[in-house]
Amino acid sequence: MHDFYSDTQTRPSRAMREAMLEAPVGDERHLDDPSTNELCARVSKMLGMEAAMFLPSGTMCNQIAIAVHCDPGDEVICTRDSHILFAESGASAALSGVMHQPIDAVRGMMTPDQVAAAIRPRSSHAPRSRLLCTEQTVNLAGGAIWPAEQLKTVAKVAREHGLATHLDGARLLNAVVATGIPASVYAQGYDSAWIAFSKGLGCPVGSVLAGSQDFIDRAWLFKRRWGGAMRQTGVLTSMCLYALDHNVDRLVEDHDLTKVIARRVADVPIVEHVHPVETNIVLVDLRKSGLAARECMSKLKQEGVTVTAVGKHRLRIVTHMDVNTADADALIQEMLKLC
Amino acid sequence: MHDFYSDTQTRPSRAMREAMLEAPVGDERHLDDPSTNELCARVSKMLGMEAAMFLPSGTMCNQIAIAVHCDPGDEVICTRDSHILFAESGASAALSGVMHQPIDAVRGMMTPDQVAAAIRPRSSHAPRSRLLCTEQTVNLAGGAIWPAEQLKTVAKVAREHGLATHLDGARLLNAVVATGIPASVYAQGYDSAWIAFSKGLGCPVGSVLAGSQDFIDRAWLFKRRWGGAMRQTGVLTSMCLYALDHNVDRLVEDHDLTKVIARRVADVPIVEHVHPVETNIVLVDLRKSGLAARECMSKLKQEGVTVTAVGKHRLRIVTHMDVNTADADALIQEMLKLC
Amino acid sequence: MHDFYSDTQTRPSRAMREAMLEAPVGDERHLDDPSTNELCARVSKMLGMEAAMFLPSGTMCNQIAIAVHCDPGDEVICTRDSHILFAESGASAALSGVMHQPIDAVRGMMTPDQVAAAIRPRSSHAPRSRLLCTEQTVNLAGGAIWPAEQLKTVAKVAREHGLATHLDGARLLNAVVATGIPASVYAQGYDSAWIAFSKGLGCPVGSVLAGSQDFIDRAWLFKRRWGGAMRQTGVLTSMCLYALDHNVDRLVEDHDLTKVIARRVADVPIVEHVHPVETNIVLVDLRKSGLAARECMSKLKQEGVTVTAVGKHRLRIVTHMDVNTADADALIQEMLKLC
Amino acid sequence: MHDFYSDTQTRPSRAMREAMLEAPVGDERHLDDPSTNELCARVSKMLGMEAAMFLPSGTMCNQIAIAVHCDPGDEVICTRDSHILFAESGASAALSGVMHQPIDAVRGMMTPDQVAAAIRPRSSHAPRSRLLCTEQTVNLAGGAIWPAEQLKTVAKVAREHGLATHLDGARLLNAVVATGIPASVYAQGYDSAWIAFSKGLGCPVGSVLAGSQDFIDRAWLFKRRWGGAMRQTGVLTSMCLYALDHNVDRLVEDHDLTKVIARRVADVPIVEHVHPVETNIVLVDLRKSGLAARECMSKLKQEGVTVTAVGKHRLRIVTHMDVNTADADALIQEMLKLC
Repeated sequence: MHDFYSDTQTRPSRAMREAMLEAPVGDERHLDDPSTNELCARVSKMLGMEAAMFLPSGTMCNQIAIAVHCDPGDEVICTRDSHILFAESGASAALSGVMHQPIDAVRGMMTPDQVAAAIRPRSSHAPRSRLLCTEQTVNLAGGAIWPAEQLKTVAKVAREHGLATHLDGARLLNAVVATGIPASVYAQGYDSAWIAFSKGLGCPVGSVLAGSQDFIDRAWLFKRRWGGAMRQTGVLTSMCLYALDHNVDRLVEDHDLTKVIARRVADVPIVEHVHPVETNIVLVDLRKSGLAARECMSKLKQEGVTVTAVGKHRLRIVTHMDVNTADADALIQEMLKLC
Repeated sequence: MHDFYSDTQTRPSRAMREAMLEAPVGDERHLDDPSTNELCARVSKMLGMEAAMFLPSGTMCNQIAIAVHCDPGDEVICTRDSHILFAESGASAALSGVMHQPIDAVRGMMTPDQVAAAIRPRSSHAPRSRLLCTEQTVNLAGGAIWPAEQLKTVAKVAREHGLATHLDGARLLNAVVATGIPASVYAQGYDSAWIAFSKGLGCPVGSVLAGSQDFIDRAWLFKRRWGGAMRQTGVLTSMCLYALDHNVDRLVEDHDLTKVIARRVADVPIVEHVHPVETNIVLVDLRKSGLAARECMSKLKQEGVTVTAVGKHRLRIVTHMDVNTADADALIQEMLKLC
Repeated sequence: MHDFYSDTQTRPSRAMREAMLEAPVGDERHLDDPSTNELCARVSKMLGMEAAMFLPSGTMCNQIAIAVHCDPGDEVICTRDSHILFAESGASAALSGVMHQPIDAVRGMMTPDQVAAAIRPRSSHAPRSRLLCTEQTVNLAGGAIWPAEQLKTVAKVAREHGLATHLDGARLLNAVVATGIPASVYAQGYDSAWIAFSKGLGCPVGSVLAGSQDFIDRAWLFKRRWGGAMRQTGVLTSMCLYALDHNVDRLVEDHDLTKVIARRVADVPIVEHVHPVETNIVLVDLRKSGLAARECMSKLKQEGVTVTAVGKHRLRIVTHMDVNTADADALIQEMLKLC
Repeated sequence: MHDFYSDTQTRPSRAMREAMLEAPVGDERHLDDPSTNELCARVSKMLGMEAAMFLPSGTMCNQIAIAVHCDPGDEVICTRDSHILFAESGASAALSGVMHQPIDAVRGMMTPDQVAAAIRPRSSHAPRSRLLCTEQTVNLAGGAIWPAEQLKTVAKVAREHGLATHLDGARLLNAVVATGIPASVYAQGYDSAWIAFSKGLGCPVGSVLAGSQDFIDRAWLFKRRWGGAMRQTGVLTSMCLYALDHNVDRLVEDHDLTKVIARRVADVPIVEHVHPVETNIVLVDLRKSGLAARECMSKLKQEGVTVTAVGKHRLRIVTHMDVNTADADALIQEMLKLC
């Protein structure tokens, strides 16, 4: 298989698994797991936050942040294509009773004016604007990177209006590696932020959510209530610690590979347009006269190449630890055969 | 006071009150109130539905429809400016746990293509598109009237994709009176619809929600659970029956008055643009260089004229039973003074 | 019909209806309805509270109090037979996400020890005990009256543990009339309390919820969100004002009638036991060897007498304005025929 | 440390960790993780169910079962001391909007008559009785074992009234090992059931929820929505598979140790009463004249012995892989010192 479906598909390496063999563990619910404690300390520091919490998924990170920041009936401002809206099974309304005010933003990056316009004046009957969520990098904009200044400015606008701010940093480290800007700079002005370990960092399970100590204290209620409180999570977090030490810098290889793919896929006749590539995602628009994206995805799958249809005529190609230039060759070859 | 704030401000007339004096009443929870039963029968027939239910407000009509049609986590498609989104205190997420997919539609009327594009393909992680809500007339588009064909077509598109359909008919009878098209024609293709009695029809309290018998049977659970089940509602519904007999045709007078106001307000210097008038609402955009809408609203209020700011530079003027040409004179004169 | 089903079945008298004819009205959402404002002022004073709010039902009073006092996941302490638990369609969990800790109390009156034992120590995993709800009079204990001291003491225990307190006073005025103790004394130590107008007071619709100004301010959010915000409610509250002036003292007649019924029904052979009568409710246990309560209820209904089965072998008989000694005669006669 | 706090405190052994080193893994969300698939197949077969799902905690197992079986406002019948009620942070109301009807049952085992009496007749205003939850073994009854027949009979009563049935089998395998009765026999008549791996089986993380294929298909919605969907869970489930092979039969050692402790602790002067011991839990009532349980727990902790206070005068002592007779000696000695 040549798996460009997502960077979530990485399998833990032998070395990563071995890191778990000797890891000290304990009950995370009593804050007694040394590996988990160490991971939380490192990530909170990396993000410039006071405290952090290990969670089984990124969805739980986003949704707990919403639950802590909002009351039922409040409104969350985000872009229309944000993961929190389209890919979390309606969790924010189902779990926390919150509304969304989606913004149609160019490449998933709202302008300060858009944010200001989306915030409702207080009234007796409108939902209360309560939380701004941004996403770095922007998944459905092809891994696009918010300029640090813009990311900070929209947070500032939100705070000036009394809103809380949350940064979905599932792939934040891809931005960090691509730009050299520290994660803590991107997270400035945000009340909560998280990074995923089960994506480009190559871990099997887990994400870490960070914020103020008070935020994390309140977040524990939801971690427990929703069933995300586990026991000896050191078996997972020891692998995340390994990833912090060994798998961050190498994200540059994934970024190099997307550039190769972007260049070569542009010459495939069924391809109409290749979106700008900044990190580890390539978005490709197919000629509308030809194959639908879903058909294309199915046919490639039969040949052992997996990609994702993210629209009627758009394919997403994601690079990660478990694909290389040989896989890219296979991808291009099979796409050429579709013409 | 010259009250153009909303048609919700009408006070019941003496004749309407007298209609209540002799009205037969009983316990509506046992379907034992003759006046309420008669009202429900008349409205369900008017809307071409099987059954109906009396409720204390239009908000409860909209929200019960959502609760019956949807499960938590489902998604409701509507326009960004629909009452259900901006004016019901976040009820749909708070009460039913549903998400919204707002469409930016010209004059609040989505095209069939917009609806089709907003419906998500079934997936493992996206919210399930479940309900289409439309609004006739469109409040924030200045009482604009959907063409019957378009209203039916968007419902058809929704149903073809397995969605339920709901029509917010708070001011549906304004459309009926303005076009001569029966309410049942506008409600074709809709699984539920309602009309308000506490707006242009001049009643103090109440709306009636209609749908299939099964829909109404299920709606009773929410009417009870949310505290909307009352007792001898005949004291209210007798006034609604009076309104059906006496206050529907006269809506044409409200429409005539908006036309007069629209013509005259166009000459007021602070006014930049008057939106097309179709029913009983006039939307006026102020010159951006001048007064903000809220300031303008406040100043008019001091002079005994009430209107609503519905945007930074937009005023809403609504006509109803309790305003006439003399009030319109006062409105124009006071607006002229603001220049 | 001889209607002992419930005091909710009263129909408004001619005089009560006439009270509405001239009543001043306005939009209650803008606190602009003089009749509603007057009613709220009178009831809040009567209950010794700062402020009050008119609502379409007692269920909405109870549920809004829960919504204001609690967060999702909190726990409400009440008796197992309280209205809030068995008769509001699961509203407290469905609307506010709260748990219940039901107490099995003699005649629906918890002891201070029972309350203290039901309050959970704070822990990382237990629901947070948050609200104590009591009911005066106790409906399913046959209209039993809490001694004022006991009612106050359980509230005190709750408050000492940091809980809020709520008094369901649907029939509180029955206790007031029976004992001569003012409503404000019964409501001492409670953060919120309400009385119903659609029960013994003979009004068609409405209840009034009272509390601190801050409580009522926050309650408005839920009144709006749940669709309980209406418009010119003066048409209803003018009848409630009439009831305060004319129908409170006469509750003593209902209490006299229950005593007559209790005495006479004790001689009916199918009756095993008549519960103590304190206000306007008679509870009767049938001989277990004989008719089930539901059967009995059905047979009486066929003869034009309505009562309620509130258990397999228990009937509830309620007196109110619209039944008198002749109706009591009919009730006894028809019950005798069942033997 | 001599850790009798809970069997959740076990740390994975070296051998268990090594089982993970070579385990095949994949994305569980695509049902592509061979280890997870194997575990689900084995557990569903063990429980006599069609299908199963791996989850990060037992709380999520219980709560997903409730979410699948119930609608908001429905009522769940369980005992007052069940984990689902007292130890899951109010999740059932907060996540699924369900009410509870707690039964006061001897040793946590309801009788069929109690269950029948707790089921509400269908009515227009009562919550709908929808789900029966039982717990095997009964945690707060000291690991007591339901007789298979009684467990089946209460389920039968529930089903005859149209309720679904759920078995919280956190420690079901302790019952299986103690009695020799297969897990599938205990789970007969249940629509869903689960077992924990992070308790007596010695795994760091995870539980497996089983039911019909349709149940599991619907459960996936909640696993995703609540953030319990992970990726390469084979790193966890490979350890669970190891536990199934190596750690089930040895539970008998934990049961032997509780018997030793029960016998010896009975002679400690501060102990008033030792509850019957059936599996791996010893409940001890302290003399009421002496130390409160929490004080006792604190003092023991200072000496390196952990137990749990589960009431004002009750201690819970739990045995597991990581304690032995030497730890029991220490426990008894330290308790003796408290006299």
